[in-house]
Amino acid sequence: MALPSTRPTTEGGAEVRIVEIRDAVLPMRGNIRNAYIDFTKMTASVVAVVTSVVRAGRPVIGYGFNSNGRYAASGIMRDRMIPRIMEADPRDLLDDSGTNLDPHRIWQVMMTDEKPGGHGERSVAVGTIDMSLWDAVAKIEAKPLYRLLAERYCGGETDAKVWVYAAGGYYSPGKDLTALQDELRGYLDLGYTTVKMKIGGAPLDEDRRRIEAALEVVGGEGQRLCVDANGRFDLETALRYGEAMAPYNLCW
Amino acid sequence: MALPSTRPTTEGGAEVRIVEIRDAVLPMRGNIRNAYIDFTKMTASVVAVVTSVVRAGRPVIGYGFNSNGRYAASGIMRDRMIPRIMEADPRDLLDDSGTNLDPHRIWQVMMTDEKPGGHGERSVAVGTIDMSLWDAVAKIEAKPLYRLLAERYCGGETDAKVWVYAAGGYYSPGKDLTALQDELRGYLDLGYTTVKMKIGGAPLDEDRRRIEAALEVVGGEGQRLCVDANGRFDLETALRYGEAMAPYNLCW
Repeated sequence: MALPSTRPTTEGGAEVRIVEIRDAVLPMRGNIRNAYIDFTKMTASVVAVVTSVVRAGRPVIGYGFNSNGRYAASGIMRDRMIPRIMEADPRDLLDDSGTNLDPHRIWQVMMTDEKPGGHGERSVAVGTIDMSLWDAVAKIEAKPLYRLLAERYCGGETDAKVWVYAAGGYYSPGKDLTALQDELRGYLDLGYTTVKMKIGGAPLDEDRRRIEAALEVVGGEGQRLCVDANGRFDLETALRYGEAMAPYNLCW
Repeated sequence: MALPSTRPTTEGGAEVRIVEIRDAVLPMRGNIRNAYIDFTKMTASVVAVVTSVVRAGRPVIGYGFNSNGRYAASGIMRDRMIPRIMEADPRDLLDDSGTNLDPHRIWQVMMTDEKPGGHGERSVAVGTIDMSLWDAVAKIEAKPLYRLLAERYCGGETDAKVWVYAAGGYYSPGKDLTALQDELRGYLDLGYTTVKMKIGGAPLDEDRRRIEAALEVVGGEGQRLCVDANGRFDLETALRYGEAMAPYNLCW
């Protein structure tokens, strides 16, 4: 019997289940720097959740990756999170319909026997797997994730537009004001109206010159430029920067 | 030339340096449970900092391990902390005298390019290596660590006695009130005057019976017994437990 193509189908009619969870550690290879860290040795985790669901002869796979700046969380995933999921009863990982994975239930399984706390490391491990799971869930339902989430949690309503900005303007060896301006102009050429740049990784005077160079390019009387000191400042430096930033009328 | 035996000596007169940092992941194999987690799959990291200092023909090695309940932090140590230490200039890891390791400087090296945050995971990785370093520092100075710390940070004064308590009274399959009492009696036999037991992993009535059984053994009108709910309670449960505990006059 042929099932409608939007319903999950598995080889041999088997239950929807997770066949395998793979993770890889990838170097970010960025020669950039903010006020806190340099990214030369930065890594990220990439996760693939391979499901038993087959579409067009190929397994449905959900993918996820973690944000730049926090390093791969491979150890925590391989030692704890992935084994817990793979050792669970596959039926306990499904939603009530039994036809798709349930990221909430899998989250509970991942967090079994975990004490509170773990910010910034364990949350990367859990979050990267969680992203892969939601990607798999949407693919199994054959819908974009934004639509699936809107249907489940927002009465089906979606926003036609989402405000975004380009996050760049890092420090980097030999990068002068012209290079910074060229970079930001590149974002505007891509269609971005607002850009963010790093501050706090150079003396205030130099950062001021960088900001003024950026403002020449982005315009908008300051409201198209954001700055990010990455939480590096002590109180005194923060106040000094705050006073110096005030006249620029920045977006933030 | 023979150096005094309390001064560091290295093979061939080489500088004091870290030759190798090894870590191992060990299962805790505990069939115990508190209100939050069960320890069946608990692991711990054990670290050995092998130094170039030789005593009686053997290298001085500092050892460390992490506390039960947080899992091994092998991934973070192997991926980030240990490589940073081993790639640093060995001279940057020494104190001003150049004859011993400096845990504070090594801590800075370990935390290079790390964002703020990381409680409960990264702190385990850093802390376990830090413990090994202090053990190595004390061994290189041929002193107990407590004395070395007292000399450096407390004008040489040490306490003749330190108040301690025995932390036990976990939940465990088939463990009845008699078994709990036998366990606590064992701590008293070892010389402990105060014991701690777990609560919050059973209904309040059962926990109350466990506490009353414990009090029969430890005596002291409640002041020799502490209870630990491991942060599991919501507000309502905490208040309910608090009211139920009040009459026992517990140590905490």
